[in-house]
Amino acid sequence: MKALTVVRSVADLRRAVAEHRSAGRTIGLVPTMGALHEGHVSLVQGALDRGDVPVASIFVNPTQFGPNEDFGAYPRDEAGDFAKLEAAGCRIAYAPVVEEMYPGPQLTTITVAGLTDHLCGPFRPGHFQGVATVVCKLLMMAMPDRGYFGEKDYQQLQVLKRMARDLNMPIEIVGMPTVREPDGLAMSSRNRYLAPSERKTALALYRGLNAVADAVRDGRASCSPVAERAAQALLEAGFDTVEYLTVVDAESLAPLDRVRGPARVAAAARLGRTRLIDNIAV
Amino acid sequence: MKALTVVRSVADLRRAVAEHRSAGRTIGLVPTMGALHEGHVSLVQGALDRGDVPVASIFVNPTQFGPNEDFGAYPRDEAGDFAKLEAAGCRIAYAPVVEEMYPGPQLTTITVAGLTDHLCGPFRPGHFQGVATVVCKLLMMAMPDRGYFGEKDYQQLQVLKRMARDLNMPIEIVGMPTVREPDGLAMSSRNRYLAPSERKTALALYRGLNAVADAVRDGRASCSPVAERAAQALLEAGFDTVEYLTVVDAESLAPLDRVRGPARVAAAARLGRTRLIDNIAV
Repeated sequence: MKALTVVRSVADLRRAVAEHRSAGRTIGLVPTMGALHEGHVSLVQGALDRGDVPVASIFVNPTQFGPNEDFGAYPRDEAGDFAKLEAAGCRIAYAPVVEEMYPGPQLTTITVAGLTDHLCGPFRPGHFQGVATVVCKLLMMAMPDRGYFGEKDYQQLQVLKRMARDLNMPIEIVGMPTVREPDGLAMSSRNRYLAPSERKTALALYRGLNAVADAVRDGRASCSPVAERAAQALLEAGFDTVEYLTVVDAESLAPLDRVRGPARVAAAARLGRTRLIDNIAV
Repeated sequence: MKALTVVRSVADLRRAVAEHRSAGRTIGLVPTMGALHEGHVSLVQGALDRGDVPVASIFVNPTQFGPNEDFGAYPRDEAGDFAKLEAAGCRIAYAPVVEEMYPGPQLTTITVAGLTDHLCGPFRPGHFQGVATVVCKLLMMAMPDRGYFGEKDYQQLQVLKRMARDLNMPIEIVGMPTVREPDGLAMSSRNRYLAPSERKTALALYRGLNAVADAVRDGRASCSPVAERAAQALLEAGFDTVEYLTVVDAESLAPLDRVRGPARVAAAARLGRTRLIDNIAV
């Protein structure tokens, strides 16, 4: 097992990356908020599969949390994260303090219009601006060849792909399939918030998405009544609220009446104090 | 004289830059809107002085012009520009069509807050967002070591410095002194709009800035009455309107009551159909 180098500053990150670059290697950045699970490990593996030296960042970014969200409670386990990264074959872990990422007021922000009007956008005002801006910063710090993100956060992935394309970054944004628990629940750092009874209920989310995908796949059914019935079923299964459960165009994320091309069923629902999101291809 | 390579696409630009990079050279980008004058030539020289291979872009960016501004009338002289760049020692000219810069809708925009509240900001809504976004795109296309901009557009320079810093771009933004005509008028592509009588009147702008700088330099005079008298003098000299004439902090661009540190006197005024801006250090 090759050793993991832990760096805390942009300067040290750039030095560590430059060493691999000067040896002719390509770089793959895996931005994370820590509390790593097998989904993150699959992103590191994705980088290795493409021949990139995997570099992971661990930073719980305050600017992408709303005032009533779980920034303070977000799980942190740095030592465990480093162990998982090293075991996965990651070579550099960049774990900056907030002051290294935001040494002064961040006056510059990146907005991706359109894509953020749908799904989580209206429920998390400012969230995608925070995500786009911090990911741009991380990309500029590491200057990788590729950045790896999970399809679990499908809207985030589309926003970041669009940002990289619109700003002509010489960086490819790679989306990797969602990793699931054996029973189908999408892996998420927030799953550890779930009480055992909630953990059972949570499975209804993935089941509901599959039921909708099956019902609308052939393009004959109108999506919204199907999705509404599935949302109702989530509430009956024990979810407290369903923020959205909807069928959207796979690229523009605009709601679809009928499926005619690549589409995604996506949902966000609350179970106790936990907000879960998931999505699947149609 | 070394030959100028003209490229029209991002791919060709990157290839041309990579050739110099692989020979171990550093790159200096000089973004322009064409209609080049000695001010632009000084930016190319600035790159040469720092050992960079000068790369100039020529692109009249539609997104930084307001609906009633001079996008259509903005002077264009590509053949003349290429000749001037080659004579100045520039090695690559990137002159894309609009579709190369904006192949689809530009959903992603960059906003620099605070700095754009002052000076030209309120008079040109959306202008600095357009500038920041297109300059980010050009920087990402060329990935230079340094980007060169004139102090003539002082607010633009500060906005771009802040953008590069806030987004952790591995690129230095270099400001170069304003180049002036022998009588003191700041060089500008828009000077060619001026009728001969207007050209004489225009000189009052630089004189006014100097009068204000002299009056407030020692920190004893309150800035705004001095600036107001100078604005009045511009109108008396023949300017049609004065959008602003003000003393600001050299970094935050916030208006100053008294000069206590690095400051700038800046003005924008209209003469017939021409909008002129200028600024000097206090």
